[in-house]
Amino acid sequence: MWAGMGYSEREIIERVFNMFRWHPKELMGRGDDVAVLEARGLYYVYHIDSFVWSTDFLPGMSFRDAGWKAVVSSLSDLAAKGAKPLGVLVSGGFQPEWTRNNVTEVLLGIDEAVRVYDTYVLGGDTNESSDGFLSVFTLGISKHKPPSRRGAKPGDYIVITGLLGVTSTAYKILLEGFKAPDYIKKSVLEAVYRPKARFDAGYSIAPMASASMDISDGLALSLHQMCELSGVGAYIEEIPIHPLALEFSRIHDLRVDRLILYEGGEEYELLFAIPPEKLRDAFKAAKNANIDLHVIGKFTEEKRLVYKFGDDIYPLDKAGWEHLRG
Amino acid sequence: MWAGMGYSEREIIERVFNMFRWHPKELMGRGDDVAVLEARGLYYVYHIDSFVWSTDFLPGMSFRDAGWKAVVSSLSDLAAKGAKPLGVLVSGGFQPEWTRNNVTEVLLGIDEAVRVYDTYVLGGDTNESSDGFLSVFTLGISKHKPPSRRGAKPGDYIVITGLLGVTSTAYKILLEGFKAPDYIKKSVLEAVYRPKARFDAGYSIAPMASASMDISDGLALSLHQMCELSGVGAYIEEIPIHPLALEFSRIHDLRVDRLILYEGGEEYELLFAIPPEKLRDAFKAAKNANIDLHVIGKFTEEKRLVYKFGDDIYPLDKAGWEHLRG
Repeated sequence: MWAGMGYSEREIIERVFNMFRWHPKELMGRGDDVAVLEARGLYYVYHIDSFVWSTDFLPGMSFRDAGWKAVVSSLSDLAAKGAKPLGVLVSGGFQPEWTRNNVTEVLLGIDEAVRVYDTYVLGGDTNESSDGFLSVFTLGISKHKPPSRRGAKPGDYIVITGLLGVTSTAYKILLEGFKAPDYIKKSVLEAVYRPKARFDAGYSIAPMASASMDISDGLALSLHQMCELSGVGAYIEEIPIHPLALEFSRIHDLRVDRLILYEGGEEYELLFAIPPEKLRDAFKAAKNANIDLHVIGKFTEEKRLVYKFGDDIYPLDKAGWEHLRG
Repeated sequence: MWAGMGYSEREIIERVFNMFRWHPKELMGRGDDVAVLEARGLYYVYHIDSFVWSTDFLPGMSFRDAGWKAVVSSLSDLAAKGAKPLGVLVSGGFQPEWTRNNVTEVLLGIDEAVRVYDTYVLGGDTNESSDGFLSVFTLGISKHKPPSRRGAKPGDYIVITGLLGVTSTAYKILLEGFKAPDYIKKSVLEAVYRPKARFDAGYSIAPMASASMDISDGLALSLHQMCELSGVGAYIEEIPIHPLALEFSRIHDLRVDRLILYEGGEEYELLFAIPPEKLRDAFKAAKNANIDLHVIGKFTEEKRLVYKFGDDIYPLDKAGWEHLRG
């Protein structure tokens, strides 16, 4: 894995990655969100991710939210692979001007996430830094070989969990000053301050998937990454829209498709490629586990990404939300 | 593990740590440098550590040095436990003003360290941050249960690798403007720009140790940590002084004992507690592997830490080097 490259010199970094002495037995490959090693019949899943104050700390967020979100966003990548979290290690960079209360709140947020997702703190360290950060390493385990990002085949169904558009709506409100009625605002802000990791869906569906990942970079960018690594295209027929996002887009006369596809992000819903012969089982499993699963389209032989919205077909651009950076 | 707490609000953090939902099967305990889980007869060793530009990037250091040092300082904690590194994951925070060359150099330094220590990159991610950082997670494996920090017994020998004082000398030169002849300067700066992890000593000696750690926080602070966790004291009879540190202290009329004990740090030599009945075997193993090992004293029943220097006995204060912070 080497994920989350929102850095402007992406190509340079990628060139160097190709020089890295990469682990020869790592099973997912360089473009994945996680690294997987097999040992004595078990699959160990590793992921690292950082929450950085200057780019990820949203207006109105609390320090406890930050601790929570740092852990959950890192756990989400294990969830996408159907791996059970064994524990987390956190390296924290704390700003010298933070109060005792700030520090305590960050740590309580970490602890809260660890408890809710039934995992543990395994360790960590603390540093002083002029820009706060929390690097969260998560360690997971799976009896099944986790699906990579690169396994999608033409004809596989594109399946996602949940309804989209809630985080995009929140960013419009928080970062661009859009107004919204309180009942919309309350719900959508909660979703970006306190996101949830979809272990329920990961456990049930990942074992049937030929590829999987979370859509933390937004649906469009995530689909592009999966298609590129798998050497396929995608035809999206229907985007499951959250009613609050739909209402918000109507109030402000925004194109809800664009809002969802390109302005979302940090939505920890999961994206799966499901082979046709397994679709029925996947939906049966989803029903039993009470998971909202949606077929949104199909992977295609032709390496083009398009989506249908209303009566029109649009190209799906390789564009997405890149944190708060300008 | 939760190590490297140089943060001023240490007690607050420690109080919260005690609330953390800690992994019940972790074998080292909270105060250790690493976390260890056993699975199917193998010991998996985990460590996370961050290199932060504002506090760890030394004057005269290159970006490649920083990449190297971030990896080596994290690997050092595996070395202290005698664990073989399986791979590293790196979460990087890159400052927006860094050039392409800066970024490339950081990555090349990471790759260089990984190759020299015969390990691999398993993954990572990249972020934008106003203070650069590299959080390095290292994963190791051992057939033997690694010694913790808390296993030292009264009567165990205090044993360290190497000769001390080189990094203290470098900090005096780099951070306090002390002058030194070129042959001193060149050697000691190399030691802080390009430290080495002592896997040679870890593999040979850790299996015989009742406790082990690296002395990256300086000898005095490291000994205090080991004594506190083990419930013992220490009597240091002899400090193995590096000839360049001795010469530097003479030139500037500095107390070399104080220089070594309290002003060192990021010295990746290893500290072991060796039971008397294993001392001979430890030295035999060291000789075979060409490792410079020194008995410096003994752990004591009485929970006092003292050291002999010249003809006098001094208390060993709980003080050490805390990065570049004020």
